[in-house]
Amino acid sequence: MSDEFERIERIKELLARVDWDIDIGIGDDAAVLRAVDEEQALSVDACIEGIHFERRFASYHDLGRRAVLCAASDLVAMGATGRASLVSLSLPSDVNDPDFYSLVEGIGEAADRSGAHVIGGNLSKSSVLSIHTTVIGSLYRPAIRRSTARPANRIFITGVLGSAAIGLRVLQNELLEFPHRDHFVQSWLMPDVPFELARELGAKATAAIDISDGLAQDLSHLCNDSGVGAVIEEALLPVHPALDEAAEHFGTTGLALALHGGEDYQVLFTCNEATVPFDATCIGRIVEGSGVSMIRKNGESEAVVCTGYRHRW
Amino acid sequence: MSDEFERIERIKELLARVDWDIDIGIGDDAAVLRAVDEEQALSVDACIEGIHFERRFASYHDLGRRAVLCAASDLVAMGATGRASLVSLSLPSDVNDPDFYSLVEGIGEAADRSGAHVIGGNLSKSSVLSIHTTVIGSLYRPAIRRSTARPANRIFITGVLGSAAIGLRVLQNELLEFPHRDHFVQSWLMPDVPFELARELGAKATAAIDISDGLAQDLSHLCNDSGVGAVIEEALLPVHPALDEAAEHFGTTGLALALHGGEDYQVLFTCNEATVPFDATCIGRIVEGSGVSMIRKNGESEAVVCTGYRHRW
Repeated sequence: MSDEFERIERIKELLARVDWDIDIGIGDDAAVLRAVDEEQALSVDACIEGIHFERRFASYHDLGRRAVLCAASDLVAMGATGRASLVSLSLPSDVNDPDFYSLVEGIGEAADRSGAHVIGGNLSKSSVLSIHTTVIGSLYRPAIRRSTARPANRIFITGVLGSAAIGLRVLQNELLEFPHRDHFVQSWLMPDVPFELARELGAKATAAIDISDGLAQDLSHLCNDSGVGAVIEEALLPVHPALDEAAEHFGTTGLALALHGGEDYQVLFTCNEATVPFDATCIGRIVEGSGVSMIRKNGESEAVVCTGYRHRW
Repeated sequence: MSDEFERIERIKELLARVDWDIDIGIGDDAAVLRAVDEEQALSVDACIEGIHFERRFASYHDLGRRAVLCAASDLVAMGATGRASLVSLSLPSDVNDPDFYSLVEGIGEAADRSGAHVIGGNLSKSSVLSIHTTVIGSLYRPAIRRSTARPANRIFITGVLGSAAIGLRVLQNELLEFPHRDHFVQSWLMPDVPFELARELGAKATAAIDISDGLAQDLSHLCNDSGVGAVIEEALLPVHPALDEAAEHFGTTGLALALHGGEDYQVLFTCNEATVPFDATCIGRIVEGSGVSMIRKNGESEAVVCTGYRHRW
């Protein structure tokens, strides 16, 4: 088994990228980015074995890729495009060299996809596998905050809701046969983060938030921080046609997972206009007041109570 | 016990700082730093329970402070001054609210000391306590690399060697009585990182490296990366007068800990001049060739073999 410094050498070979703005990449005490004349968005996210994933869920490559995609999704929600990343890895002793390099290659694939090339990191032993990813993005316009939604704004989301939450349950329960298994599992394993929309969002959105903790909870955060309320429509929520049936298998409903399932790593944004020139679904509008309510398919209105994911100790 | 969002609110109260270059701090999907016209140094470091520390070693406040001081020391070794930090915390369920807030206050104290104010982070459950700290620093001059030492340069280090390694052993062995216990334990617990020297180093040093993995190993890295060798002198190594006696207690020598003990979080730098106008000790010089050798107190020369800390799996 390679030691720390041998692994770092191999990481350099796998992840070093030539990029105009990287002055010093992997291998010194710190990386160095060249001076920039735009604002920077910075965020950190963690994927921890036993909490966010189990190793049996997927290959090391897929787990590494997912960790960085999930971290980089926060940049999109600010309207920022990926520029660089730093990855702090904690590795148990049963992660052998091929596993480790597969993990690193997955990290590199996601870094390339998001534009946030890996410029540094840290490597430690630990009893649990964890990947803590810091991402740095460039803002060519002012950042899209979560506190600036205004009454009458339309509410949009990218992607579909609830599929990733089903995928996680399929993996947790080791279901090798499941209707539309590929769609659901891939939704969890390879979040389709809309990196290409970052700049357009910056031009169109009045406010935005990443919905990884569940639509209801994250929309509530946006409403609270903006001092507004929201009305969404059940009939407008973008879901896979098989979501209800799949949810039933796990004793829940498609609607519950769409609202509270989390794991989506998509972007919710508000906008002055009724349509946007890219792929996103209008699900309702911002209103005066506070709280989130939903118009059900039968026309009735009800309050949405937040039961999305939050760590509790 | 507070949940994730209640704790994040409290973190905001404890760590938010007004700073000219923070546009958006803790609380949105990402933090936003204003545009800068200098290069940035970025680094990440981890402190993991069971690997780097045990909770019985110190208060939560002290452990939080140490984690951020250790991370920020990499900035100094590049000649960068602290600008911002992001902290990803993994917390077991037996860390209660007062413990947690004490940890956060310690983090804040170190962030203030290093200038790297906390602008964001992540909070997760985990079975082991870990603190992954990303630090961002400003470079007002070109970064000091580890690959640019040249023959005839003098080699300097800040601080004293070996004391932190003794302190760690005192804590591991739960020795409540030990000669000079305070000096040794504090050396480990509150690394005296020379933040105030970052700019002066940038003006004076030809190369630099953080010596947290042990003088011999880190000097070897610098020599390898620079394509040079080094000769150091045992008699010049700055150590506490009681180091030998303390080392003997643990079946080793003061010299072994000075060379290989690690945990020092000080800076080794090379310089064209024989003296520097700040507190640092000249321990030898860079030579043509490769490898590190040491002139012993008896005048004999011997090769220094690296046995500093490296993670092995």
